[in-house]
Amino acid sequence: MHHFDAETALVRVDANTWRGTLSEAWNIGNNPNGGYLLSVVLAALREAVPHPDPLTITAHYLRPGVAGTPCDVQVDLLREGRTLTTARASLRQRGVIGVEVLAAFGDLSVPAGVAQELTIPPAPIPPPEACVPRSGTAQGVGLAIAERLDVRLHPDLATAGTAGRAETAGWIRFRDGRPPDAGALPLFADAFPPSPFALLGVVGWVPTIELTVHVRRRPVPGWIRAQFRTRDLQSGRMIEDGLLWDSAGHLVAESRQIGLVMRATAQSGEKS
Amino acid sequence: MHHFDAETALVRVDANTWRGTLSEAWNIGNNPNGGYLLSVVLAALREAVPHPDPLTITAHYLRPGVAGTPCDVQVDLLREGRTLTTARASLRQRGVIGVEVLAAFGDLSVPAGVAQELTIPPAPIPPPEACVPRSGTAQGVGLAIAERLDVRLHPDLATAGTAGRAETAGWIRFRDGRPPDAGALPLFADAFPPSPFALLGVVGWVPTIELTVHVRRRPVPGWIRAQFRTRDLQSGRMIEDGLLWDSAGHLVAESRQIGLVMRATAQSGEKS
Repeated sequence: MHHFDAETALVRVDANTWRGTLSEAWNIGNNPNGGYLLSVVLAALREAVPHPDPLTITAHYLRPGVAGTPCDVQVDLLREGRTLTTARASLRQRGVIGVEVLAAFGDLSVPAGVAQELTIPPAPIPPPEACVPRSGTAQGVGLAIAERLDVRLHPDLATAGTAGRAETAGWIRFRDGRPPDAGALPLFADAFPPSPFALLGVVGWVPTIELTVHVRRRPVPGWIRAQFRTRDLQSGRMIEDGLLWDSAGHLVAESRQIGLVMRATAQSGEKS
Repeated sequence: MHHFDAETALVRVDANTWRGTLSEAWNIGNNPNGGYLLSVVLAALREAVPHPDPLTITAHYLRPGVAGTPCDVQVDLLREGRTLTTARASLRQRGVIGVEVLAAFGDLSVPAGVAQELTIPPAPIPPPEACVPRSGTAQGVGLAIAERLDVRLHPDLATAGTAGRAETAGWIRFRDGRPPDAGALPLFADAFPPSPFALLGVVGWVPTIELTVHVRRRPVPGWIRAQFRTRDLQSGRMIEDGLLWDSAGHLVAESRQIGLVMRATAQSGEKS
């Protein structure tokens, strides 16, 4: 079993409740990465829902996760249809909600409408070996998660405050060789440095209020290519859009999050 | 009182439940528009939540609304913070959920982070008087909603199947002079013809699975300018992105939905 699967594993304790312990291996600074927390919720949803693929997942981050301590995930199925199941789920620690999720699952291998296709071509990014490994030092924060995820940044966008635009791009894969799948894409959509850093420098913590991921296609094995851009930052609230492609060049996920770009403080760091 | 406020009004029947009747005045074909249904849910949330502005609203459409019949909206506050309240809400008719909403409210007049700003300039669109009024006839569907909303389409994008790209753009306002506000933007984000029509022609019904709206700024009075684009359509599932600007040229909302672009059938029509 790969780390990702072992460290998101839960035990079902009743019809609607799963239980586990949040790992410290996916921390950014002192708290678990938001994509990891979402993956724990998805582990419960996957068992509860008859359809295989998460088509649209919205996560609201209410409180930071506490690594090394237990969590419960409670799932409610809202509608089970022939082609789609809609469900909500709450991740709780010590009785209070940390992450609230609303999602719809379907089957990406089954066509759902017209045959015409439109897509977004892969962003031009130098190959992984010509990119810069993501470093916690450059962001002034401990990156336990870097032992789990191999993230390579576009060299033009790797140094905070020097890119001239609010963009992050590069490559991502599991370090232990686990192939990417539809269930890994929400994690990958929240595992790059916040795109405002490239423009503004490391300004402070970037807490995510809400993240929505649309999984568009099951990825083939290999690196996932990713691009994240913030074109809209008002009163400290950013909208960051993400695109993920598999190694065959297929668009496999789109993401959008609203987050706060905080002023630098003594505890400057990183998004949850 | 303006039509929008009267026809989304609810009565609180207990601490967490509001009751009303869905109006027929916002129908597209035989069913209420999805933006209208969401506005009914927001009417309950607005009373339940201490913060004034919906910052991020995600709606899942589980079943079509039935106009002219009662509905209940049940609200659960998930977290009340100093700057943000997170809540979920379910709109039910005859005991089953039609629309499920997860949202965070805050105060757009209060800065939440860094002072630097980024924005997306208004799309170039001819003035409203040079645009084409939206017509149900052109889409082969009854448009009761056209009595409530004045929608003008960019002349290059107004005829289905002729635009060469999956884009809708134009202007929108309430017919009765009600000024736009933060609470009207989710409605406006779901009141234009589906953008694939411009490229593919009227292909069939376009049911929304999930719609997320980020309200970015309170609009000033006047027309709202809007642009909707589908760049990603795979296996009949589209991701449509929307941008809304107020009459001062400020970006006031962003939207994204996943919907199904169905093959044409005898009941070809329009998104819910």
